[in-house]
Amino acid sequence: MTEPTLQSDLNSFDLKAFLTEYGRLVVAAMEKRIARYPEESRVTQAMRHSLFAGGKRLRPILCMTSAEAVGGNKDHVMDVAAALEFIHTYSLIHDDLPALDDDDYRRGTPTCHKAFDEATAILAGDGLLTSAFEILSHAADDGLLPAEKVLTIIAGISHAAGCNGMILGQMLDIEGEHESLTREELEDIHNNKTGAMIEVSVFSGAYLGGGTPEQIAALDVYAKNVGLAFQVIDDILNVIGDPKVMGKAVGTDAELGKSTYPALMGLDGAQDFAERLINKALQAIVSFDNKCDPLRSIATYILTRSR
Amino acid sequence: MTEPTLQSDLNSFDLKAFLTEYGRLVVAAMEKRIARYPEESRVTQAMRHSLFAGGKRLRPILCMTSAEAVGGNKDHVMDVAAALEFIHTYSLIHDDLPALDDDDYRRGTPTCHKAFDEATAILAGDGLLTSAFEILSHAADDGLLPAEKVLTIIAGISHAAGCNGMILGQMLDIEGEHESLTREELEDIHNNKTGAMIEVSVFSGAYLGGGTPEQIAALDVYAKNVGLAFQVIDDILNVIGDPKVMGKAVGTDAELGKSTYPALMGLDGAQDFAERLINKALQAIVSFDNKCDPLRSIATYILTRSR
Repeated sequence: MTEPTLQSDLNSFDLKAFLTEYGRLVVAAMEKRIARYPEESRVTQAMRHSLFAGGKRLRPILCMTSAEAVGGNKDHVMDVAAALEFIHTYSLIHDDLPALDDDDYRRGTPTCHKAFDEATAILAGDGLLTSAFEILSHAADDGLLPAEKVLTIIAGISHAAGCNGMILGQMLDIEGEHESLTREELEDIHNNKTGAMIEVSVFSGAYLGGGTPEQIAALDVYAKNVGLAFQVIDDILNVIGDPKVMGKAVGTDAELGKSTYPALMGLDGAQDFAERLINKALQAIVSFDNKCDPLRSIATYILTRSR
Repeated sequence: MTEPTLQSDLNSFDLKAFLTEYGRLVVAAMEKRIARYPEESRVTQAMRHSLFAGGKRLRPILCMTSAEAVGGNKDHVMDVAAALEFIHTYSLIHDDLPALDDDDYRRGTPTCHKAFDEATAILAGDGLLTSAFEILSHAADDGLLPAEKVLTIIAGISHAAGCNGMILGQMLDIEGEHESLTREELEDIHNNKTGAMIEVSVFSGAYLGGGTPEQIAALDVYAKNVGLAFQVIDDILNVIGDPKVMGKAVGTDAELGKSTYPALMGLDGAQDFAERLINKALQAIVSFDNKCDPLRSIATYILTRSR
């Protein structure tokens, strides 16, 4: 697989430049917020190692872009954007631990427990998760967002990240290793493990950006389909991806005897399935104006990504 | 050491009955809130294993009692009380992991990673921490607490639990193993590792209970001194405690070459120091009326506890 075609059908929209620009804004927002913690502390250093090791910044960018899609201001959701990436990063650090996926490389750099040690990686994950909520607790400080709305977002994010969402999915994923899962069981794992956080990223932006209930509902359909498509492509890349481009090992699902979409439907079937999901996502937001073009373009990009 | 003398100087106050009653309220509050998560899930079972393995419930009881000390209603702080114990329990689960303290028993029962496995224990800790913030995000739902005040509490708790508080202290504690620390360094570790969460437990109750700034400041002095005394006694019990009464191993600090108060000042010196701290704590709240008797009694109990 070659570099993804970042030029989508939306010819006027340069997604690559957009992702670079918004990615920089996310990094700047995270820099500002991690600066609250003592820089000389080993646990802060470990948090920084993983936060700034690259990454697509998909969740914060979805949050910012969803706020703009409904006419909101992305600057007002940067606390939420940063918190989403802190939580995503913590989940990667803990997933990579020897007791879980036991991965040595992530985004081409040593994983947190390899660069530091296991105890520090556990604490760094705990630190990022705790910091995410500290960041969110200050999201109403400048008076741009009402406290009630911020509490709704904290409720949504903690629900999505917790034992009815990401952590439940992670547990089911571990329990499902070396077992032959049905498509429904696999979908349930992914909806929890990655879908819930992608959904709440879109919801946070749409809700804080002032979206109508109809807009928020439409964007939720978008997010559900994009989230699942993202995971289907992840499974495909674990079979056919280039480890150099991906910055991590491939073939690990097969080694662990994990049920995957390619295993269930074949590579072509899985690719077709992902395309159908992305079409559903695009259909859900067909009535939105051109402020929604970044979301459309991201959906198309997910199909063609190589890492 | 025999069972603690729960009868304090405050002859009219039966602390043992009080702790039993309030401990039951904490357990009931936690039961209600853990019920939000799927009971059949392995990670929920692991969370329940550690939540309901006993314990003093000191932090939630301090929160409830501080609310009452300033004339507030403990029923209004039960979300916060439960969240504080969820966070405390997560910190114990992760502390006990092989990569950290590697403890097999806690409160007389197998630690989470022994009863389940390491991956599940990591996820159970993550789950409890995330759930704590989910609980807090709903603390304004019944209209008894304003959203702004709840955000202030989330800010305070995430600060105390995070990389300027408990996690920083935990990291310093690990780094300080096999090193000879000064008394200032040791105090810094403890103020972060246990002090910050005890302080915010008292603050949460006093603030949400409607305390005046003066009352809150006085209770903060109480909390700082009680928190440090608690840790000094912990160090003493690690030397002279009865593992049967404590439900965990003793002598572990010496094995790890940890700096402790008994090592720095001798057993008698450490006991004297704890007594001076408790006297300072009592002095700080000397002008409070008898609604503060439970806090007074808890301070005295901390000196004489055997587990």
